[in-house]
Amino acid sequence: MRVKELSTRSGVSVPTIKYYLREGLLHPGELSSPNQASYDETHLRRLRLIRALVDVGGMTITAVRQVLTAADAPDETVSRVLYAAQQSISSEPALPQDDEWAKADHMLAELVERRGWQVKRESRAWQTVVAVLVSAWQLDHGVWTGTLDAYADACERIATADLDYIAGITGMDAMLEAVVVGTALGDTLVTALRRLAHQSESTRRLHA
Amino acid sequence: MRVKELSTRSGVSVPTIKYYLREGLLHPGELSSPNQASYDETHLRRLRLIRALVDVGGMTITAVRQVLTAADAPDETVSRVLYAAQQSISSEPALPQDDEWAKADHMLAELVERRGWQVKRESRAWQTVVAVLVSAWQLDHGVWTGTLDAYADACERIATADLDYIAGITGMDAMLEAVVVGTALGDTLVTALRRLAHQSESTRRLHA
Repeated sequence: MRVKELSTRSGVSVPTIKYYLREGLLHPGELSSPNQASYDETHLRRLRLIRALVDVGGMTITAVRQVLTAADAPDETVSRVLYAAQQSISSEPALPQDDEWAKADHMLAELVERRGWQVKRESRAWQTVVAVLVSAWQLDHGVWTGTLDAYADACERIATADLDYIAGITGMDAMLEAVVVGTALGDTLVTALRRLAHQSESTRRLHA
Repeated sequence: MRVKELSTRSGVSVPTIKYYLREGLLHPGELSSPNQASYDETHLRRLRLIRALVDVGGMTITAVRQVLTAADAPDETVSRVLYAAQQSISSEPALPQDDEWAKADHMLAELVERRGWQVKRESRAWQTVVAVLVSAWQLDHGVWTGTLDAYADACERIATADLDYIAGITGMDAMLEAVVVGTALGDTLVTALRRLAHQSESTRRLHA
């Protein structure tokens, strides 16, 4: 198909498609004449992926390029692509690395060992958990000292369900799209369902 | 203490403290002279709360104000403050209420009935779950059609742990603050732990 049809079918404007081509996010079409390129279903699918990363994942074009580079590399595993994607979506927490930080870091390390988790200490997710614990302590909020395992247990169930789904998908682009969509939309889903569960549980206890 | 000491002890700059005072997020100090106010531990505590909500909870100043207003109101019940807090922290989803919306709404209503949840259909949390389902379907992401119950089950466990903690707190002020802090910081905690669980589960499967 020509670029105009690609634009119509993907919902992405022609100037934006040309921008993605220049930036190397989208692979070039096949030249049918010196001034005309032809595009196929792989271009359509990649465009949809880019839009999902930007619109749903809230990623910058730079972050999109990093994730796509990871996904396009040969011999890339699901595990590494998932890690690259989640690093790009997560923000960097900003808190001083003092004594309280060290204490929270140790607490998370113990949780991880207790549950046999294989995770990277330098990942943003790890740093974020530590930052939350430090902030909570500074506010005398002690809940997660006692109930971090309940949270971890709940998140294990969710991750298992997520990865069962990812495992059933064929093709790196489709899989990457599912990882990013699932990670970004899943954040919103889990926090909204937690609020509904709060509503329900507090109402139930009020009338118990 | 003077504003300079308040700044040093809280780690919040003097201009930012003055901004919070102007915006009414921070209650005024006691005037010791026409140009000088004196601050105490309540100011320090409130500043720490505001920073946690903004830095770790990712809340806007407008959202912080709404939550603090709810927490400061007399005669509020935990259930109502929790609802106000979660409404403020949640954003309003923006999607057309078409056939897909109705289908997702019905799916959530069935989940809620199946689990015996007592929740408000007009709450932002409800609307957000529906919006996530619609967005996921539009991107051909099918995971939550099959695994919504796994998510709901996980969130029930988290909510039970949260409310057990809240119930053990003495003093209405402390309880209300815990609700606000727990709701905002808890969002960040649960999404970060979910990412760690993803890392771990994908690594485990790779070597299985």
